[in-house]
Parts: sequence; structure tokens; C-alpha cells
Amino acid sequence: MKLFDGGRAPNPRRVRVFLAEKGMEIPLVAVDMGAMEHRQQAVASRNPLQRLPVLELDDGTILTESIAICRYFEELQPDPALFGKGALGKALVEMWQRRVELNLFHAVAQAFRHIHPAMKEWEVPQIPEWGEANKPKALAFLQLLDTELADREFVAGDNFSVADITGMIAVDFMKPARIAVPEDCGNVLRWHKAVSGRPSARA
Amino acid sequence: MKLFDGGRAPNPRRVRVFLAEKGMEIPLVAVDMGAMEHRQQAVASRNPLQRLPVLELDDGTILTESIAICRYFEELQPDPALFGKGALGKALVEMWQRRVELNLFHAVAQAFRHIHPAMKEWEVPQIPEWGEANKPKALAFLQLLDTELADREFVAGDNFSVADITGMIAVDFMKPARIAVPEDCGNVLRWHKAVSGRPSARA
Repeated sequence: MKLFDGGRAPNPRRVRVFLAEKGMEIPLVAVDMGAMEHRQQAVASRNPLQRLPVLELDDGTILTESIAICRYFEELQPDPALFGKGALGKALVEMWQRRVELNLFHAVAQAFRHIHPAMKEWEVPQIPEWGEANKPKALAFLQLLDTELADREFVAGDNFSVADITGMIAVDFMKPARIAVPEDCGNVLRWHKAVSGRPSARA
Repeated sequence: MKLFDGGRAPNPRRVRVFLAEKGMEIPLVAVDMGAMEHRQQAVASRNPLQRLPVLELDDGTILTESIAICRYFEELQPDPALFGKGALGKALVEMWQRRVELNLFHAVAQAFRHIHPAMKEWEVPQIPEWGEANKPKALAFLQLLDTELADREFVAGDNFSVADITGMIAVDFMKPARIAVPEDCGNVLRWHKAVSGRPSARA
């Protein structure tokens, strides 16, 4: 199998960090998103949504969506469990992965895509008012997350999970989106420093 | 356990349809979202995001996020499998559930929340331009889905799955969002009629 990878973009990085945590190595095909290569034949013929990453299996089957690709790897190699263990553990990881993705990762992405001048060709129409409206959404969620992280180490509980990967990359994405983590979110800052210190964060 | 339910709203319905497909019955606690009861103590103390549905387990553990709640029920009662079987089957259901949710369900919700006068108190600020920008996104995804459904019965393959539940409810949600399924999307219309005819659709 091979993974069509998009370099610095947040979604491709989610899968690379996940693989690093699993200790798995998959051949990568580099796609230059800055040069809009993800809208050209190699990607578009595999994913009509023209987004990365894309996993191609040896029989030609295509998997897209970062979390679906991660779940495939989780099934192939269950340890360490990054989607939780047991009915409740799996549900709690799913809940937090979704909370972080929909309320933070997604809000930061909207702020970036609808405000940053470099995104004019990517997000049509670019609506700066919508981008701005997402900044307080992201900040409100960080306050909620800060309260949660007061008494546990990771986003979904005592174990590192895919929710931490989405969260770390969302916080990193705040820099180009020009949103700062509020100084009173000490628990978020502690957690972000800890997960960023793991070797997988460099993937 | 008990499920705090929100009546006609799309997310609570996803869980009720899922339970009906599983043949499971869970005690429901009715919450009147029209009267903004989801922002009052009973829900807000359980889910700081003030959204429904919310599942409370017998020991007081709280699960939120429709898909996380559905996954919990899938783990408790695996048959019929609504999240797929095997590594690839599970990954394909996850991929399609996400594609439908992010590109259709979410786009329709944005159009509804940012344009409909009744949503003025719910979505602050309401940005009609953003609502309008989502209509072509939803329609473009329906065209893609129509191509896919030309040679299979259900969204994620030959078996009914949670991706069909999200898709059916997204299409139903198009009515109040005032978006019509294009007449040339015959496969989508055939599929929607079929899934709407299942007893679970009345849940």
C-alpha cells in the first residue's frame, strides 16, 4: 500500500503522527499542495473530493478521510490502542476526537481558510466575517478543554489517543490562523507541551 | 441508562434511527429544543456544549456526540453491524460516514442555521452569505454520491450502515434548508426512497 501525503497540511500530518505512534511505516507519495498538485490527476482520479491524505491498498482500493485511514491502521495493528479499549473506552475516544475536531480543529481551519490571503484560491467564496466568527468558537472550546485537562493527562482520559493527535495539530494550526491559546489555559498549555514532546509530533 | 432526546432535530434522530435498526430500546428523556431546554440545567450540567443527544449511563458517565453514542451501542450489541465488519469494511463505513457528514449533513446544517429566520438566536452571528455558500457544496456532493450509488445499494457498500442514516437525515434536512435534490440525481433519489421506507426511518 502507499499513502499520498500532503506535507505540512494538518490532515496528512494527523495520519503520519498516528503511524509514528503505532511504529508503522508506509511508503509515502509526496504531493505538493502548495503547487495545487492535489487537484491534478494523480489525486483527483483517486479521490474526487481532491483532498489528502489518500491511502491506496495493493489491490487498488482507495481509502480517504484521515480518521478512516487511521482506523484502518488501528484494525491492522491494535497496539497501542489509539481509538480506546472496550465499549466505553472506544466511545469516549470517539466523543473527544469528534469534540476536538468539530469545535477546535474545524473552527481553526475555517478561520484560516476564510481570512488568510494565501487561501483565496482554496476557499471560494472567502468570507472573512465567517472566519472571524470562528475565532471565539475555538477559544470557547479551549476553555472547556482546559477545565477537562485539570484532572487528567490526555484529552480522552489517562491514555494518549487519536483525540490528542487531532488536538495537538489543531493547536499548532492556530499559529497560521493567528489565534493564540489564552494564557489562563494553563492545562491546555501543559498538555500541548507534553504531546508536542513525543517523538511522533515530528512526523 | 437514559438518552436525553431532542425530538425532530437531526442529531437526536440519528441515534433513534440507529437504535431502531439495532432493535434496541433505551429510555428517552424528552427535551424541548424549540423552548431552548437544551441550554438549561438538565442538559447543560451533563454536556457543557449544550447539545443533544446526551446518553447517561447508570453510573452517571456521560456520552455525547451522536456517532460516539452509536458506536457505544455497536460495541454493546454488534449485530447487525452498522459500522462495518473487518478492517477494510470498518474503514470504508468510517470514510463514507465522514464524507456524508462533513460534505452534506454539515453543509445543509450551515445553510439552515445561517439563513433560516428561526435560527437567529441559535447561530450568532448569522451570516447568510456563508449559508448560501454551502448550498453549492451540498449539491456538488450529491452529484458525487449519485455517481457512487449507480452501482451499489447503500452509501458505504452492499450493506446498510450508519453512513446511510447520516445521509438520509441530511437529505431530509434539505427541506427546511430549502435545497432540493437535483432531478438528475436519480440514484440518490432511489436510495433515499429505499432507506426512508425502512421502519427505522420513522424513529
